[in-house]
Amino acid sequence: MTISTLTFTDLYTEVQQFYAKQIHHLDGNEVDEFTATFTEDGEFSHTPDEIPARGRANIAAAVHHFNKRFVNDPVVRRHWFNMLTVEPQHDGTIRTIFYALVVTTRPGGQPVIAPSCVAHDVLIRQDGRLLTRSRRVEHDELR
Amino acid sequence: MTISTLTFTDLYTEVQQFYAKQIHHLDGNEVDEFTATFTEDGEFSHTPDEIPARGRANIAAAVHHFNKRFVNDPVVRRHWFNMLTVEPQHDGTIRTIFYALVVTTRPGGQPVIAPSCVAHDVLIRQDGRLLTRSRRVEHDELR
Amino acid sequence: MTISTLTFTDLYTEVQQFYAKQIHHLDGNEVDEFTATFTEDGEFSHTPDEIPARGRANIAAAVHHFNKRFVNDPVVRRHWFNMLTVEPQHDGTIRTIFYALVVTTRPGGQPVIAPSCVAHDVLIRQDGRLLTRSRRVEHDELR
Repeated sequence: MTISTLTFTDLYTEVQQFYAKQIHHLDGNEVDEFTATFTEDGEFSHTPDEIPARGRANIAAAVHHFNKRFVNDPVVRRHWFNMLTVEPQHDGTIRTIFYALVVTTRPGGQPVIAPSCVAHDVLIRQDGRLLTRSRRVEHDELR
Repeated sequence: MTISTLTFTDLYTEVQQFYAKQIHHLDGNEVDEFTATFTEDGEFSHTPDEIPARGRANIAAAVHHFNKRFVNDPVVRRHWFNMLTVEPQHDGTIRTIFYALVVTTRPGGQPVIAPSCVAHDVLIRQDGRLLTRSRRVEHDELR
Repeated sequence: MTISTLTFTDLYTEVQQFYAKQIHHLDGNEVDEFTATFTEDGEFSHTPDEIPARGRANIAAAVHHFNKRFVNDPVVRRHWFNMLTVEPQHDGTIRTIFYALVVTTRPGGQPVIAPSCVAHDVLIRQDGRLLTRSRRVEHDELR
């Protein structure tokens, strides 16, 4: 399918699958595969009041740094996205907004569901594939 | 795209984006934009055992009345929908069923996720746009 | 629509609606309708360390057995799926992966959301309809 024949329906569905794969990589601790879903110069602002990570290497470093807290605390984390809007822009970028929750489960425990966030992404298509050029995450408990 | 070429796939996807925008308005306290996603004579039965709000003005009033409880209790509320079925009817209306959860976060706090509901909508297409003609919300804790 | 014209977009959307209907049956205690969404020889591994249920009759028996715990404990249970990937295979089967949470509500109570799982399905198309040939559910608290 060429871009010229890509309908909104195709795009919305492609974004859903793209996010599912991206998050399976993140939650599966496949950090390189996760950062490969960002553009080379991608920007990831995942924690408020911190300078955004820029570029795949820095995004990978930020994820590894964040995950250090779990070294002696084995958890399974699952990111859930919902209420997704997809808005193609005239410049060829695609803006999305979606809600996010993180579901954290410890061995034998019940899931803890926090924080609640809203994310604003800019996606682009490169060599036929969607990539995240920037992600800004706002935390509900900090508003 | 004319209605005659609208496939089920297109419709299902359109409903997903429609609900995402509708809920971003509701959770963003954009009450007029939210009520504009209902038909002029739309019906919204959001709380059991209360008479449904009929018409955009009454739906707006119901939302404002509901939100009064948060005047001195700053919260961010996010409605999550899931497990959506979309069923076009012979009369041109579209019936949907979906699960809903409300995620409520207070400053510095963890999200509280309640209630759990199932919603039954009737959607229609007017001037090319989807609108909610009626919504009936059932609460799991009251069954 | 014939299979030959079925795009990825159509398939992804069809899977979403298929799962929504399947789960509405399960959560609505429509056990026969739920098991009818599996192939005749379908396999359902819903609880770790138990032998998977094989065939519709055994899947129905497993669901009834599981639900016995609620005979004197009236609950509404809702399964939520998210972060769905759909991967058509060369052999005509369709592999999906998705996150799952169970939302359990008791009369007058707040929902309890547990467990958090990831499911791996194999779907096939039979007489034009999707069916689950196998489902393997992994629980996060047991990893």
